[in-house]
Amino acid sequence: MKRADVVIIGGSAAGPQAAMVATRHYMIDSILVIRREEKVLVPCGIPYIFGTLGSPDKNLMPDTVLGDAELMVDEATGIDRSSQTVSTAGGETIGYKKLVLAIGSRPVVPPIPGAELENVFTVKKDVDYLQQLQQVLAGAQDLVVIGGGFIGVEFADECRKLGLNVTIVELLPHCLQLVCTEDLCARAEEKLREAGIRVITGNAVKSILGDGKVEGVELSDGERLKADVVIIGIGVTPNTELAREAGLEIGELRGIKVDEYMMTTDPNIFAAGDCAEKFSFFTGKPIGLRLASIATAEARIAVTNLFEQRRKNRGAMGVFSTKIGDLAVAVAGLHERAAAEAGFDIITGESAAVDKHPGSMPGAAQLSVRLVFERQSGRLLGGEIWGGSTAAEIANTLAALISQGVTAEDVTFLQVGTHPAFTASPLASQIVNAAERAIARVA
Amino acid sequence: MKRADVVIIGGSAAGPQAAMVATRHYMIDSILVIRREEKVLVPCGIPYIFGTLGSPDKNLMPDTVLGDAELMVDEATGIDRSSQTVSTAGGETIGYKKLVLAIGSRPVVPPIPGAELENVFTVKKDVDYLQQLQQVLAGAQDLVVIGGGFIGVEFADECRKLGLNVTIVELLPHCLQLVCTEDLCARAEEKLREAGIRVITGNAVKSILGDGKVEGVELSDGERLKADVVIIGIGVTPNTELAREAGLEIGELRGIKVDEYMMTTDPNIFAAGDCAEKFSFFTGKPIGLRLASIATAEARIAVTNLFEQRRKNRGAMGVFSTKIGDLAVAVAGLHERAAAEAGFDIITGESAAVDKHPGSMPGAAQLSVRLVFERQSGRLLGGEIWGGSTAAEIANTLAALISQGVTAEDVTFLQVGTHPAFTASPLASQIVNAAERAIARVA
Repeated sequence: MKRADVVIIGGSAAGPQAAMVATRHYMIDSILVIRREEKVLVPCGIPYIFGTLGSPDKNLMPDTVLGDAELMVDEATGIDRSSQTVSTAGGETIGYKKLVLAIGSRPVVPPIPGAELENVFTVKKDVDYLQQLQQVLAGAQDLVVIGGGFIGVEFADECRKLGLNVTIVELLPHCLQLVCTEDLCARAEEKLREAGIRVITGNAVKSILGDGKVEGVELSDGERLKADVVIIGIGVTPNTELAREAGLEIGELRGIKVDEYMMTTDPNIFAAGDCAEKFSFFTGKPIGLRLASIATAEARIAVTNLFEQRRKNRGAMGVFSTKIGDLAVAVAGLHERAAAEAGFDIITGESAAVDKHPGSMPGAAQLSVRLVFERQSGRLLGGEIWGGSTAAEIANTLAALISQGVTAEDVTFLQVGTHPAFTASPLASQIVNAAERAIARVA
Repeated sequence: MKRADVVIIGGSAAGPQAAMVATRHYMIDSILVIRREEKVLVPCGIPYIFGTLGSPDKNLMPDTVLGDAELMVDEATGIDRSSQTVSTAGGETIGYKKLVLAIGSRPVVPPIPGAELENVFTVKKDVDYLQQLQQVLAGAQDLVVIGGGFIGVEFADECRKLGLNVTIVELLPHCLQLVCTEDLCARAEEKLREAGIRVITGNAVKSILGDGKVEGVELSDGERLKADVVIIGIGVTPNTELAREAGLEIGELRGIKVDEYMMTTDPNIFAAGDCAEKFSFFTGKPIGLRLASIATAEARIAVTNLFEQRRKNRGAMGVFSTKIGDLAVAVAGLHERAAAEAGFDIITGESAAVDKHPGSMPGAAQLSVRLVFERQSGRLLGGEIWGGSTAAEIANTLAALISQGVTAEDVTFLQVGTHPAFTASPLASQIVNAAERAIARVA
């Protein structure tokens, strides 16, 4: 029987991060990664396969991300907790001292008639499946994307570059509704429309039409849209079957239950990433966020706790960025509405400036920041950044600040390094000015 | 007699920031800015006038940066502390309740024979002077830049684009020697050489040669270089005459002495920016750093303390970025050697990855991060970032973290938002991996 001190199941985000950190940084020698996929896709790169990159093969993760861990391509089918073994579809039995479940999530398929028709796709992290999607797109004319979250929006934007007629159908009043504040959603929708994408919001797909192959969709209001491809991107659900069958507890939001050390209800089994239950950095309550940034952070926590209790999870914050045409949108922590919904009494501050200086520098673009603070304490709860491409890294500056519980006053003390080719002017730091503005509004 | 509640002297960085923050955020109505210059240059943009921008007029600061402050273009020539008035070259007398000195610094001219020759320039923040430099450069063939700090390097890089033969002469063993670690200096020098710039280090200009006009320079080792223009960029010295003549105390590093509230030895007079004495964020000791990021942060502190004591200066950190060819170099806080020189027992961690993901995304470039931690406490002291253009904003993330006194462990908890077009992969966050590596080295 094969044995390893640490067995990691999963190859997408939390799995490789756990393997890399364990082997490179913590010098755990005996590590085996079991994953189903021969080749692993870079998860965030999937929408970009179809326009920018050109093929799934250009979006593969090199196996070097596993550090010095051993790789077994096989499907884990069962866990025997008493003998501490994992069994696989390939007939192997692998002994572990500690097991890390990084088994991810899978796309939600809505209960719509016709969802099983040919040329209806979800966003699976599977090379062959996406190659098939790419082939279908190559011969298609009309694409309907169901779901206007950032996956849906990115797919629509990329597929439009292929010359398809693209329509997004979003149930909520706006695309990106769960991700950012309404005015920013509207700005993103404007960019989509400028690119020639039809954006339908506040409307649902009632059924997918066709005989064998998809031919169209019917909306709640009765409108019918032509479609020879449909892509569904309405969210994911955690993979928990392996854990459930092994008798591990499942959390109230259907992820594998873990404690602050990312330990499941079995002290020899840890879980991290999309499969694991999460709680909010801000409220401590369970939340449904599923992001690579959270998955990798959880993996780093889990790995250090395998043989000693060392790092306590501080909760999921939510930091992400997306690109719609030439508009970057990034969010860290709680945006205005999310903060209000979480019960915080908030105050905001906003500031805009060009992202290079002077504005005559080549490639300069407007960049705006809106910060959200708790009114009483001044604590920074989140921020939205939109405009030029440095929005994503500015979101990471905000995430760093939020992680430390800073106040608006603290933000004003920042010494913001600047350069004509890379940043706003030192007079115009959007983060600093947004904080000053929020302070002035309270005063 | 003209009167204002707050009079600010200076129009470059600390002055406008003080005016903007006071009027926009703190609603101080009666503010007058006195500055000498009709038009104000964006200080960091000055080197880019000559190549990228094309003229000083494209590098002007709009007067909107003054917020709602009143502007007087005149030279402040005296302060009468007993009557709380400022007198000007234009014959005005202006009464103040509170005075902010943001009178900046001026280029150091080394005591070299020939420094007074025609076509020897320093880096003055003066439109007419730089226009003259531009005209001279247009007819020149051989440029010698004295000083290989970041101003010298940026000038050399830009002027080379004009087709000049450019030589940098640096006294220290490396260009950028005071700014970053040697290996990074060497990398920058390589970029300069690739661009066709001659880099001479560990050598001094003994004299500037010529009869009326500059014709060349002679180095300490006897070599003579042809030059029809010389640009001197070896540092700045604080402007303190106004303060000195008014009887204000001067600090040990020759800046205007200020307390933690940026108050000078007169409670009605504050100073901020290059003219003010500074202390280190890390050691509390006086330091000679002069940067726009510090100047603007000090201005924000000073302004809030004019009528009540509110913000205490936390010290100058040093956050900056520069560009040499296609190489971005950014530093936050103490780099390896600076930390050692400040007496810290340090440990470092380094990590590199492409700045987009997958690496096949258009425009992807390598980006490296080296972090410096105090060995015992794990406290983050600084970092260097080099490679792709997001280095500058990543330096600001580091600065944010350093400002909060985080440890290497804290850094590993970061949830780093990522996007294929904008950042490294979530598995490859250079900041996080550099911290993990440093932790592993201590363990």
